[in-house]
Formats: sequence, C-alpha cells, structure tokens
Amino acid sequence: MTTGTSTIKDIKRLTEHFKYVRSMFEQIAAPLETEDFVIQSVEDVSPPKWHLAHTTWFFEQVVLESYIKNYKPYNKDYYFLFNSYYNSFGERTIRQHRGTLSRPTVEEVFTYRKEVEKRVLEFLSTVDDKVVNEVYDLIELGINHEQQHQELMLADTKWNFGENPLLPLYKKTKQSQFVDAVEHHWIPFSGGVVDIGFDSPEFSYDNEQPKHKALIHDFKLSNRLVTCGEYLEFIQDGGYEKPNLWLDEGWTMVNTQDIRKPQYWHKIDGKWQIFTLGGLKELNLHEPVCHVSMYEAAAFARWAGARLATEFEWEHASNSVEEQESNFLESDYLHPSVLTDDSPKLQQMIGDLWEWTSSAYLPYPGYKQEEGALGEYNGKFMSNQIVCRGGSCITPKSHFRNTYRNFFQPDKRWVVLGFRLAKDA
Amino acid sequence: MTTGTSTIKDIKRLTEHFKYVRSMFEQIAAPLETEDFVIQSVEDVSPPKWHLAHTTWFFEQVVLESYIKNYKPYNKDYYFLFNSYYNSFGERTIRQHRGTLSRPTVEEVFTYRKEVEKRVLEFLSTVDDKVVNEVYDLIELGINHEQQHQELMLADTKWNFGENPLLPLYKKTKQSQFVDAVEHHWIPFSGGVVDIGFDSPEFSYDNEQPKHKALIHDFKLSNRLVTCGEYLEFIQDGGYEKPNLWLDEGWTMVNTQDIRKPQYWHKIDGKWQIFTLGGLKELNLHEPVCHVSMYEAAAFARWAGARLATEFEWEHASNSVEEQESNFLESDYLHPSVLTDDSPKLQQMIGDLWEWTSSAYLPYPGYKQEEGALGEYNGKFMSNQIVCRGGSCITPKSHFRNTYRNFFQPDKRWVVLGFRLAKDA
Amino acid sequence: MTTGTSTIKDIKRLTEHFKYVRSMFEQIAAPLETEDFVIQSVEDVSPPKWHLAHTTWFFEQVVLESYIKNYKPYNKDYYFLFNSYYNSFGERTIRQHRGTLSRPTVEEVFTYRKEVEKRVLEFLSTVDDKVVNEVYDLIELGINHEQQHQELMLADTKWNFGENPLLPLYKKTKQSQFVDAVEHHWIPFSGGVVDIGFDSPEFSYDNEQPKHKALIHDFKLSNRLVTCGEYLEFIQDGGYEKPNLWLDEGWTMVNTQDIRKPQYWHKIDGKWQIFTLGGLKELNLHEPVCHVSMYEAAAFARWAGARLATEFEWEHASNSVEEQESNFLESDYLHPSVLTDDSPKLQQMIGDLWEWTSSAYLPYPGYKQEEGALGEYNGKFMSNQIVCRGGSCITPKSHFRNTYRNFFQPDKRWVVLGFRLAKDA
Amino acid sequence: MTTGTSTIKDIKRLTEHFKYVRSMFEQIAAPLETEDFVIQSVEDVSPPKWHLAHTTWFFEQVVLESYIKNYKPYNKDYYFLFNSYYNSFGERTIRQHRGTLSRPTVEEVFTYRKEVEKRVLEFLSTVDDKVVNEVYDLIELGINHEQQHQELMLADTKWNFGENPLLPLYKKTKQSQFVDAVEHHWIPFSGGVVDIGFDSPEFSYDNEQPKHKALIHDFKLSNRLVTCGEYLEFIQDGGYEKPNLWLDEGWTMVNTQDIRKPQYWHKIDGKWQIFTLGGLKELNLHEPVCHVSMYEAAAFARWAGARLATEFEWEHASNSVEEQESNFLESDYLHPSVLTDDSPKLQQMIGDLWEWTSSAYLPYPGYKQEEGALGEYNGKFMSNQIVCRGGSCITPKSHFRNTYRNFFQPDKRWVVLGFRLAKDA
Repeated sequence: MTTGTSTIKDIKRLTEHFKYVRSMFEQIAAPLETEDFVIQSVEDVSPPKWHLAHTTWFFEQVVLESYIKNYKPYNKDYYFLFNSYYNSFGERTIRQHRGTLSRPTVEEVFTYRKEVEKRVLEFLSTVDDKVVNEVYDLIELGINHEQQHQELMLADTKWNFGENPLLPLYKKTKQSQFVDAVEHHWIPFSGGVVDIGFDSPEFSYDNEQPKHKALIHDFKLSNRLVTCGEYLEFIQDGGYEKPNLWLDEGWTMVNTQDIRKPQYWHKIDGKWQIFTLGGLKELNLHEPVCHVSMYEAAAFARWAGARLATEFEWEHASNSVEEQESNFLESDYLHPSVLTDDSPKLQQMIGDLWEWTSSAYLPYPGYKQEEGALGEYNGKFMSNQIVCRGGSCITPKSHFRNTYRNFFQPDKRWVVLGFRLAKDA
Repeated sequence: MTTGTSTIKDIKRLTEHFKYVRSMFEQIAAPLETEDFVIQSVEDVSPPKWHLAHTTWFFEQVVLESYIKNYKPYNKDYYFLFNSYYNSFGERTIRQHRGTLSRPTVEEVFTYRKEVEKRVLEFLSTVDDKVVNEVYDLIELGINHEQQHQELMLADTKWNFGENPLLPLYKKTKQSQFVDAVEHHWIPFSGGVVDIGFDSPEFSYDNEQPKHKALIHDFKLSNRLVTCGEYLEFIQDGGYEKPNLWLDEGWTMVNTQDIRKPQYWHKIDGKWQIFTLGGLKELNLHEPVCHVSMYEAAAFARWAGARLATEFEWEHASNSVEEQESNFLESDYLHPSVLTDDSPKLQQMIGDLWEWTSSAYLPYPGYKQEEGALGEYNGKFMSNQIVCRGGSCITPKSHFRNTYRNFFQPDKRWVVLGFRLAKDA
Repeated sequence: MTTGTSTIKDIKRLTEHFKYVRSMFEQIAAPLETEDFVIQSVEDVSPPKWHLAHTTWFFEQVVLESYIKNYKPYNKDYYFLFNSYYNSFGERTIRQHRGTLSRPTVEEVFTYRKEVEKRVLEFLSTVDDKVVNEVYDLIELGINHEQQHQELMLADTKWNFGENPLLPLYKKTKQSQFVDAVEHHWIPFSGGVVDIGFDSPEFSYDNEQPKHKALIHDFKLSNRLVTCGEYLEFIQDGGYEKPNLWLDEGWTMVNTQDIRKPQYWHKIDGKWQIFTLGGLKELNLHEPVCHVSMYEAAAFARWAGARLATEFEWEHASNSVEEQESNFLESDYLHPSVLTDDSPKLQQMIGDLWEWTSSAYLPYPGYKQEEGALGEYNGKFMSNQIVCRGGSCITPKSHFRNTYRNFFQPDKRWVVLGFRLAKDA
Repeated sequence: MTTGTSTIKDIKRLTEHFKYVRSMFEQIAAPLETEDFVIQSVEDVSPPKWHLAHTTWFFEQVVLESYIKNYKPYNKDYYFLFNSYYNSFGERTIRQHRGTLSRPTVEEVFTYRKEVEKRVLEFLSTVDDKVVNEVYDLIELGINHEQQHQELMLADTKWNFGENPLLPLYKKTKQSQFVDAVEHHWIPFSGGVVDIGFDSPEFSYDNEQPKHKALIHDFKLSNRLVTCGEYLEFIQDGGYEKPNLWLDEGWTMVNTQDIRKPQYWHKIDGKWQIFTLGGLKELNLHEPVCHVSMYEAAAFARWAGARLATEFEWEHASNSVEEQESNFLESDYLHPSVLTDDSPKLQQMIGDLWEWTSSAYLPYPGYKQEEGALGEYNGKFMSNQIVCRGGSCITPKSHFRNTYRNFFQPDKRWVVLGFRLAKDA
C-alpha cells in the first residue's frame, strides 16, 4: 500500500499532519446543518456523518485494533455501522441503508472522532520502534483515506443539495470572473518508451506502483479543459440525439435516464443556470464543463473529431507541467475556474477537474495486491472502471500527485469530473 | 367528508381543540433528536419532520388558500414538498424521496407550523358566518388528519429505530406487568339485519357513511386479542412452513422476505426479546401479539380452526362494549397490555391494537365520493386494502370511534396491528 | 370442491363428457402452428403446450396417483414441469420460465395427453364402487379445470399474437354486423334479503358455496354492456387525464404503463382498428368494449355518474334472465357481439364478456377451504382479487352457470373482460 | 472494417465461400426440433430462428438495399424484427422480447433465407466493376458475421437446453478420452516492443487494426488451459468463500447469484457430471474447465499465485505456435479436449476454448471507427468488456485468426470460455 524505506520515519511530523487533516474535515463540515449530515439521496453518495465516522473507524480498526493489545473498541456496533467495503473486517451496513440511520447523532459522531483521535495520538506518542515504520505507513494511509472522504463528502453534499428543490447553499465561495477563456490549441508530444508510475519514499497508493516502462505513440493534447460553451455547441448540434457518436452503453444510459445536459445545469426562464456549492448562478460559458459521465465526454470527443487521452499520455504530458498555483480545495472556489493565462503551454492539468481518460482501471505490470484488508483498498476495484487524472477544485492540495489514479464507473457524474481532448499526432 | 347540520357550529370550541391537537404533536415529537426527524428507512414510513410539515400544509392548502383572497403561501416550494397524494393540488415529491431532503431544517419546520397556526387562528377568529359551517368541517377534518399523522409518526419512528442496529429508545414508557392473561373463550352473537356505519352530527370520515343495513350471520368472537404466547405456539408448530395455512400471496411474501416471526421479535442468546418504543425488553407471552401482516393473522386463524371477523361482525359486536378505560396514546404504554380483567365479557376491542378484519376496504352502499381534493382522502384507496378496526395504543383517544375504518394493504406490518379470532356459530 | 349426494353417480355419462371436453381442447389447438405452442409473451400468459400438458398432469397427479396403487408416472419430470401452483405437490417450474422450455415438444405433449387419457379411461371403466363418488367429483373437477384452461389458452394466444408486429391470425371467425346497438336504459331491482350461491347436485366450484342469504339494497342495472363507442367518448372527454375519476392504484397503473385505450385498439392512419382472434378489423363502435382493467371500468363508471355492480347484485339480477342463446365459445365469434334485440329486458348477462364487479373475491359466509391440494384450487387466492361474472365469448358453454365466480387482479386486461353500469336506486 | 487492396477481388471464390457458410448454418440447425428454434431462456441468448433470420437480414439491409436501386424488401416487417443493435437502421424488437415471437415460423425463416440467398447470388453474378471491391468487403463481412452467429446459436442452444430439466441432447458428438492431461509447466517469453494487430489483404475486423507497436514485459504462460480437476481443487479449497481472491464485482456476483461452480456442472448422487451439447456425462477432470466468468478465472489465478495474460502477451506468444490440428467446430467434439501431446511446447492456444485475458476491450492506437452502420459493428462496444482470445471448439475454423479479438462482459458464462495462467517473469 505504501512505500518502504529503511530509515525510521518521522512520526512526529506525521502526527502534526494527522492533526491538521483531521481538523480540516471539521472545517469542511462546519457550514452544514445537523440534518444535512444524515441524508443519502442516492446510493452512490453517503451521509456526511457516515464519512466522518467511517474515516475514524478506519484508524480504530486498522491501527488501534492491530497494535494495542486487548484494545477495547469505543463502541462495538460502530464496527458494523462504519465499515465501508472491507470483507476482511466482517459484516457491514448495506450501502444504500446508510442514510436511514439517525443514530449515532452528529454530536455523538464528533465525540467519537475526538475520542479516537485522542487514542491515536496517545498511541503515536508511545509507539514501539520495532513497528514504527509499519505504523507510519498505516497512519499515512489513514490520512490519505480521510482526505479522499473529504472530497467525497463535498461531492455528496452537492448531490444531496442539488436534488432538493430548495437548492440549499453550502457556503459563499470565491467566484471566477465572467471573462473569455483562452483559445483551445493542440500541444504535440512525441511517443516512445516512457516511465509511468510512482517511485519515491513519499506516500502513494499501491495502484500507482510499480514504476514501469510504457510505450506511447505520438499524440497531441488540448491546452485546456473543454468549456461549458463548447459543450453547449455539442448539445445544440444534436449531440445527444446522434447514436453514432456514442458508446453503446452510453447511448442506453442517456436515453434510459433522459439525460440531455450535464448534471446541475438548469434552464430557467430560457437562461442556463448552474448549481454549485456556492449556490445557483448564471452559467459561465468559459468555465470548464463538469459533472458529465465518461460516455458524454467520449461522445463529445468523437463529435469534435478527437478522443480522450490514455492515462499514460496524460501522465507523460503532465510531467512537463511546471509547479504552479492550482485550483484545489484550499482555493475556496469549489468550482472549476476560467482559464485566463494565455501563455501557449499545457494548463489546467492539476486541480480544477478530475479528467476522464480512455483507460480502463487495471493493474500496472508487476502490481502486487496486498494480503488482507489493505489489499481491498484499491486492487479489488480493477474491473469496469475508468481512470481519472488530475485532481479537482475540491481535492485537498496535499493529497495530490500527478501519478494519482482515481477511478469511477463510466456512468458516474456526481464527482467533480470534466475532460480534455486528445488526438493522434 | 363530514356530517352536515343546519345550526351554526361552535367554532370557538373547535379552535381550542385545534390548539390542543397541534400542541400534542409537539409533545410527541419532543423525545426525538434532530436527526430522527429526517430519515425514512423504507418507503412506507415518512420522516417525522415530513409529518409535521404535511399536516400544516393541509391547513394552508385546504383552508387558507380556499378562503383567504390572494392568499400568500408561507413558502411556495412547500406546496410541492409537503403534498402527500393529492393529485388535485399538482405535482409533489416522490414518496420514497421524502427522506432525502435535509432542508427545510427541523427548526424551520417548527417555525412553519407556528406561523400557519397563527394564520389559521386569525382566520378562525374572523370567519364569515356564510362559510362558517364549511370551514368548521374542514378544520375538523384537518384536526383528525393531524391525529392520524401523530399515530403514523410514532409507528414510523418505531420502524426507523427498529432498523437501526443501535435500537434507540424513543422514551421511557409505562410497562404492563408480567402476569397471566385471561383465558381465551368464545362470545356468541346472533345474526340478523343490523345497522352499520356512522350517523350523528359529530365528525366522522366519509368512508364510515352512510349508515346502512347489513345482514350478518350467527358468529362468535374471542373475548380478547391473540397473545404472543399463542403466536409462539403457531411458530413452533411450523406455522410458517405449512403452505396450506396460507393465502397464496401471503405464502409468497413470507418466503420471499424470509419472514418467520412478527416484526420486532429478536431471539438473543436463545431468549425472545421484543423491541418497543420503550426499548428492547423481554417478550411478555401474555401480551397481545402485534406487527403481523393480515396474511400471518389469517394463517394463524386457519391453524387455530377459526377465521378473522368481518368488519360488520366486529362493528356489531363492539356496540355491546361498555364505556371503559382503554389503552390509547394518552395511557403512555405505547404498547398493547396484558388483559387481566377476568369478567366474561368482550374486551380489548377499543385501543391496544388495530385488529385485522377479513373485509376488503370497499365503499358502503350509497357512498358518494366527494368531488375535488377531499374526494381523494379516502375513496381513491378503495382497492386492494383490508379494513382494520379498534384503534391502538398509539391512537389519540379523541380521534377514535367504533365505526372508524382504518385500512392497509394486507402485507403491512409497521402499523400497531394485531388480531382476534372469530368463528361461525 | 364439489357437491355431495348419496346415490352413486353416473360415471359413464361423465366418461363421455370427459372425452368430449378433452377433444375440444385439440380442436381449439388445431389452428396453431408448432411455434405458437411454445411462447409466453408475458408472465400472466402460459404457452399453449403448457396448458395442454398441465390439464393432463392434473388428472395424473390428482386422480391416477391417488387411486392406482404404485402408480408409475408417464414421466416423473412432468410432475415438476406441469404443476402450476400446488404447493402440496412439491416444487415446480417458475411461472415466468414456462416459455423457455422447448421440450417436451408439442408432439410429445399430445402423446402425453393421449396416454394419460387412455389410463384415465381404463381406470374409470374399472373404478371401485367404494370410491366412485369421490372419483366422480375429482374427474368432474378435472374436466372443469380443463375448460378453464381452454379459455385461458385462447386469451393467452390472443395476447401472444397481439404483441407480435405481424399480428397473426388465429382463424377466420364469424363476425357480428356493423349495426346500431340497442340504446342503454336502466332496469330497476328491489333490494332485500336474497339467496346467493350454488346448491344443487350438479357441479360447482367450492367458492360458489355455501348458498346463503345476503342483503342487497335497491339498485339499477344497465340493460347491456358498455360499448366501444361509449368508451371512446370517455377517452375523448379526457377520461385518462382526470385523476379524480380513478382509484389511486389505477391512476398509477395507467400513468406508469402509459395506458390510454383498451388493449388491442390500434389507431392506424387516423382510424381505430381492433385486433381480434379473427384478425385486425375496423373497430365496431356498437360492440361491447373489452380488455380493460377494473380500474378503467371503475373510472368510466364514475365518469358516467354510475358504478359497477356488486357480485350479489349481479347474481340476483341474473336470476331474472330467461334461458337464451348466448355468445359462448361454441358460437365461434370469439369476440363480443353487438346487441340488437331491442326488447326492454336485461341482456348480455351470460356470455359475450366476463363483467367486472366491484366485489373483492372473498369467501362466502360458512365457506370451508378443503384440506390438501384441492384446498389450493380457489381458497388461497382470496386476497387482492376482484370477482368477475357472466362468462365470455371464449368460455365453453357447458362450463358456465350464473353462480360462477371468476376472479382476477384489478389490473388484468388479457382476459376477455368488459363491464356494465349499475346505480343506486 | 475490412482490408483495402487495389486489385479487383475474386468475387467468384467469395461466392462459393458464401454458399458454403450459408449451408453450414443449416447443418448446424439440422438437429433442432421446431420448438427449439423459438425460445430464449435468458436475455443474453437469442432464439435460433432469430440468428438464422438476422444474418439474412444483414445481407438484405447492408448489401441489397445499398446496391440495388428501388430494392423491394422480402418483408418490410423483418427489418424491424431482425435488426439486432444497429441504431442506424431504425427501430428494432427489444432484445428480451425475441423469444416471444412465434411468427414468422421456422419454415418461413428458412424460406426467407433461401430467397435472400438467391437474390444475393443474382446480385453477385452481375455486380458492377466500379463497386466490386466494396461489395466484396461487405459480403466478406456478412459471411464472418454469419459465422459468429453460428457459434452463438450453438452457445445459446446449450444454455436453453441446460436450463431445461429434461436436459435435451443436441446431438451425439465425438468424445475425448478419459486420460491424464499433460502436466502444467511455465513457458517463458521475453519482453520488448512487439507487433500487435492485423495487417494483410485478407479479412479481419476493424478492431484488430491498425497493426501497431506495443511494449510488453518478460512473462510466462502456462503450456495449457486450466483443467476441471485444477478448478475442483480451487472449489474444495474454499475459493468461492474467500473474499480476498475476488474482484469486488465478482464477489458480489457469485454471492448474489449463489454461484459455487462452473455453469453446467451438476453434482448428482455425489458424483460430478457435466452437461454438454453431446448430453450429460461424467465430468472429465482432465478436460479444460469452461463456462466460468472472468471473475472466476481471475480469482482462480490469484489463488494459484498467478494472473491472467494481457491480450498483447497472448497474441505475442501465439505467434510462436506452429500450424496444427485444432479443436474447432468442424472437429465435431463441440467441447474442449484433454491435452495429451506431451511435447514441452505452448498448446491449446487455438481452438478448444476462448481464453479470458486481463485486458479491457479498447481501441488500438490509431483505430478509426467507421461512419454509419458498419461503425456500430465493433467500436461502440468498447466499454466494460474484456478481450477473449483463441477461438473455441464451436468456432468455425475458417472464421479464426490469432489477432481475433472477441469480447464479453466479465460476468458472462454462456460462451464457451476458459482460461490459462500467466505470470510475471
């Protein structure tokens, strides 16, 4: 699951990071009303209080239970209630029932968090040198797990609010301006055998490993993400009515569910508006389009005479991107921004939106799934999912790297996802 | 929907009753945590805050909108959110989505209640003589509607809590003692042409009208409700495994859903326990059995060489019951009680448990469904439902009369329902 | 299941009737192609070869197995394949899988029929006096069962053909003329305590028994069935768009399934046509309307300011109908006829169409469900079904009597069903 | 979709091949009874008569309609009935309804075949030089399409028969002997940049093109397919009960559907038997295991400390296989054979069983989906499917090449599929 090095790891710095990330979750939760923590409007999303409790359960179950002799759980029932998908840890609440549980209350969940945090901190302050590296790795995994759920909790809340006719406001956010986005142009990349994957003492998920060689062919990438204005042209040109643009499953999906526009777009009194975590607002045609399925992204690309990039093309190209200010969670837009920097370089690769690739989520050559519960973290999902790259405007900045492989079924639209065009050279 | 008399009705007394019933709902809601108001664990139940808001919407939509010129709704969106099944009033939230709405918050719902109550009271204090009788009838209907939802909210909360592995406590309730129930014996009734239905200036629902003649045949009724102990014998004798005891749909139901005992029974460490609004407790074999479907009641009756009573038999027999203290909501047991009065009379007819009859819920001879929204109250449900009689331990006392026809699909188990045996004479 | 008398029954005459009814089934099957015997276009219908085999299985399982010592089944697998719903006889093919079995072939099924017939005839020719009455009753039941399936096989074939875009022809049938139907008028009946049910040495199903007293109130019945022309007015007046005309379940049904006309009506090039067992033809507005659900019948009745009759009203009224030529299977119309006899009497009660009543299918007072398999014939279906009366144009004439209680769920449209109006006096 | 060359193609040889392949289909159909042509036991399979008609429709719709002016269809309704999934050609029968159509009859379908064949042959004998190459390509595609459906019809018939409790026999087939299979051993292959895909004037599907470079890493392949005996060890070791062996979707699948063994295995009186197109027979533990999903194959591989091969590894390795006698349709086993040739080479790559790879079915670099209907043949299915390689014992020999990419959803078990193990070197 994590990297291995021989020197003893700096558990003190990690402890500070643990405290920081845990407290971030409470900041993210702050604007919510008690009632908002309880609901689950569709099976894909989970109640916010479930996220808060589940990430806490992870530390209790994976760390404290393993290293503290005769560990006494905070509440044995929580092991059942807050397990997500780990078969190794026994039975669990059926996913679609998460939103039917009013207890423990939100207050009780926050108390649970506090208590487990205290126990983790106590444990970390006294951890034995013999296991310190192991523990370091598990805590680091738990922190990253917590950050993943921070992003999910925001995406889920957006969905829950978006389904409510009252369209509640999460909070006032920064707004990008109504200015023109930079023109689209192609940036060429030469093919060849390239390095793919992660290999450093820092943390990464196991699915980014091992670093390996891959052959790519000459290709071009668009300098930026596809915009709402471009997507609107696709709609107006009948994109949703032309079967030959679509993958078969995508055609079935949009017709069965009567999908004719991205999630969260509303046409009100003849004007396009968009629901965001910062409320309902006029649709900004120059912003990147988001909340479309991979099927819609692929249909758009075919319509535009292009295609989606493979994840290897994406990763290789991203290596050329210099350090820059990106639109992550901490930027406080919680929405993708209009690209205004008109230098001719590859932009919006990092932050703003997760980008659909054309790559199935499969193991890298030489990938070894870990035994036991940690092997359930990533490896068992390697079927029928698509790799997404690049992080989003609701991803915590410290959670991200450019080898990061996120993955979703191609019909998912609730994550803050968009896409960029690619082309054979 | 209501009775009609020529004298002007006492709107002042009604106003007091309105205030009393409205405040009762808040008392019933008091033990709940904010989170408990939000959830809907299955489609049949509704979130408590929905009940509180929907009964308020009823007064706004049915009374204020009709009688106040240019009435300005408290919040137009609430008309969509809190309509239950009235097609006459336009679109509404899909039933199974009620539990996915975190807003309006519980506090906002209580504010909504207060404001609409204020408006109703203002309106009542100035109502025009020309419409006073009409208004009286609608307000009385609204009050009874509110009381129905008080009972439903308790039944729904019981279900929500019963599905939660933590089995939360609603509140400490009075407990009936662990004593022997009175022996079962048969009480004979002579057949003949009898009066059925309601006919007095007081309130009743339209489905209890008109009063009419019906022919019944000689029959016997059990002196009391079937007990848990008796039902346990049925289980232990393989009642759930003998297809010839069952209606075909019942056999399918218990096998598809793997039902082998009443709802809320738990066998824990070899001992039967029962979940109640007063918490989990040892199963009292002398208490009436409750939360079984009509299919189970009918299978038990066949097993016992008996049958269920028709609603006409039940109503006729109930006329012989003298005024008595009954176990209603106000008794604060919130659970059926052991019958200990050993006088040889017909008992437990009123309160304790709604009793499944064998009668389909159909219009009485001469029944006229009202036009418009009020016609949707009862008449449109007259298919595929079964009449239940007698009121329950969570029915408000002032809501009940012995002509009252409650109705549920025969597979429903969440209402506080039980049954008594009948026999041909 | 059947009547009981003390004299020995005429087994010889019954044998002749057995042979006659069995051969009728083969006549009905004659116009079908081999392929037509195999299919099951929806769960409600069964493949014709299944009907032919199942009715044969009934004689083997219920008669031969019971009375012949060490009886050797024709093919043990057929006991599994051709049981319909008798739990007493063990496991069976899942209903919706009946149409997925290509074997036994149609020819094998006909051979099976011949062989079992031979065995039954041999058995009947040597049956012991001690059991002759019992056997007589079972054979008579088997014959009536066979006749029920003859009607079902025709209704099912109509559905199968009606779903095929090629709209195959079953066979050339007699056609009623395009003449005006007799005007509708009301025929009054006085209420009182009347006799209901069957009581004679002849055959009846157990659900028509016991004969008993019932109280009915003054009422009126329409002299004839509702016509297609009248139903078209209902459609054109927006009957399917007015929620207040409908039972709640009916409103859901017609909207969920997008039903806006009777089954088998097609509007082709602006003209109404109707698919029949005699092929597609111009819609005759003077013919009785058929293939509507009870919900549609009830909505029409409400629209017309009337209601459906109860089954007691229907039976009582039918006693006044004199013997007459009726449109049964043997008439070879296989479709309801225009009523042209303008005498002012009650007509079309017998034959033409099964008539929806407003009565739930429930046991008569004093009804005793038999033990064992025969108790599964009728009694276990006494929930959520509606009684239909009167026989139809595809009912074998000798199968019918005016106490006959047919029953279907209120949403069923594949049976040859129509309705007549009733009214309080 | 097809190859392109500049010389005029030999239409006469193609005509002979057309006649040969068409007649093969009738040979395959010969053992079936009329009833067998009609049924569809699950959505994945189609009625045999549908296959026979659909492949005929393809020639009519794709060739005759395009090249014959004012072409008059044999029967316009067949365009609706026998279109499979081509949106370009308009509406079609819903897939799961194919088995509900008794007409056209089987005889009519064979007449339809004859007539369209006649028209195609006439057309081919007079085809204009200007379009001859285009026509050649379409006819060649139609022939290959027909062969695909020959294989499908056999797989579908096996499923239909396997679901019938009578387990009908398709026909007497050759049987492989009960001898020991060759020991499993690993064969190493060196990695590097290799050629993948098809590039010759002969026919291939568009999804095998373009030929391109791919990087593979050192790997090993098992010399043969996994056997029933090996799979039985996996079962006996609790393979189906160990969640950590499984992909998440696979774990859900086997538990939801209660799968504990390959399709067609039956344990009868304690002995394993297997249903084949040649009937039920004793399970031969030395035969390759077949009819398992990709999930089961992958779980087995993980249990065995191995993995599945990628399609690139498979194709590269297959280039080393010399021409040999393989077990195809024409061998008349219709079942995989025991491997007895003990030379240390790579075997059973061609024929016997389609082999699950670990590769998602995605476009090759540079793949261009054709416009119009032909673009619907392969490209639109490139999501959520897995590539299978190698051909099977029911694949027509002339239909196969080692670049052939078959594809199925990973849960499919009705195709004649098995697998072989691979390993990192």
